[in-house]
Amino acid sequence: MRRRAGRGSYRRTTIHEILDEGLIAHVGVASDDGQPFVIPVLYARDGERVYLHGSPLSRLLSRLGEGVPMCLTVTLLDGLVLARSAFHHSMNYRSVVILGQAREITNPERKDRALRKIVEHIVPGRSDEARGPSPKELKATEVIELAIDEASAKIRTGPPGDAAADMDLPVWAGEIPLALTVGDPVTDEQCSLPVPEYVSAYSREAVGDGS
Amino acid sequence: MRRRAGRGSYRRTTIHEILDEGLIAHVGVASDDGQPFVIPVLYARDGERVYLHGSPLSRLLSRLGEGVPMCLTVTLLDGLVLARSAFHHSMNYRSVVILGQAREITNPERKDRALRKIVEHIVPGRSDEARGPSPKELKATEVIELAIDEASAKIRTGPPGDAAADMDLPVWAGEIPLALTVGDPVTDEQCSLPVPEYVSAYSREAVGDGS
Repeated sequence: MRRRAGRGSYRRTTIHEILDEGLIAHVGVASDDGQPFVIPVLYARDGERVYLHGSPLSRLLSRLGEGVPMCLTVTLLDGLVLARSAFHHSMNYRSVVILGQAREITNPERKDRALRKIVEHIVPGRSDEARGPSPKELKATEVIELAIDEASAKIRTGPPGDAAADMDLPVWAGEIPLALTVGDPVTDEQCSLPVPEYVSAYSREAVGDGS
Repeated sequence: MRRRAGRGSYRRTTIHEILDEGLIAHVGVASDDGQPFVIPVLYARDGERVYLHGSPLSRLLSRLGEGVPMCLTVTLLDGLVLARSAFHHSMNYRSVVILGQAREITNPERKDRALRKIVEHIVPGRSDEARGPSPKELKATEVIELAIDEASAKIRTGPPGDAAADMDLPVWAGEIPLALTVGDPVTDEQCSLPVPEYVSAYSREAVGDGS
């Protein structure tokens, strides 16, 4: 096994880096009768907390805001690992799992800051251009925060972990790298403005190249 | 709002397509005291069921195999949606959520078939080359299946859904497409075989280009 020693429990900086590189999180919450739901959402990190907001989550947000136990997972898929044996096929990835109880943010200034952070997490520079939320919108938006407290990272990198007895099999083995890449921006048909620099710069760079 | 009418409840073929295009799923399961856990795993669809197996899930697999309620979510992130207002920022995505109770597969032939399907889902053609599981490996591997029964899809496509009053704001609006792309295969240092055709063909194609 040539895996990086210990897939679990990394330093706080590693947890922050994975959270900052990811674009969506998968949030899990269970109903009273134990049925879990897992939903993709936009998010942002702000120091030692994560903010959530998003219409796909709307029904769940209220529940989360009440402080039921939740799980937030961010996964960066870096590659497919093709081992000599079917058994050892795997993936290279970096993930963070945060457990805890969220809290609703009700203070308008803090809410405004959280929404700004989420917009900035989508595309850095964006929150300076987009129209900020009106008092009415702020009121209509539910934003929750989750402390990065009970958090852990898992990372798998490198070649397949075949058993010694399989190393000489006539089977190709290796990794197929994967990366989330950014295409050319598509301007809304009803917008006649040029693509701003922070958007075209974003599109020139790969997101999550795992290097 | 120019969203595709109804983000929810799509036809079975759409659910199948999203499951087939995705590479990883996020599986949610709750502990007895209601704490949900969300973990990324490899999977494969086989007709009207999904197979799961994977060491990151090992502790949870037994629990899932016992038939506790679970949720399996596959999300394809297609783009970032930059609206004129911060409030309407969103993402374009296709996701499937399956609720249900998994069942452990104990029959060796069915287990073998499930593992083959998972390897084929990673890279088509791979299961013909990789060494199949030995009886001992089959015994050591826990594989579970989840019926695609209580399943729904959500899809968001297209431009931002700004309010009419915001359409003339001097703010660029549009979409930044995202796609998971495949890099050149990296051969294991301890492997001297050439890259097989099905691997190089896979690397020439984008995965999940959303088109």
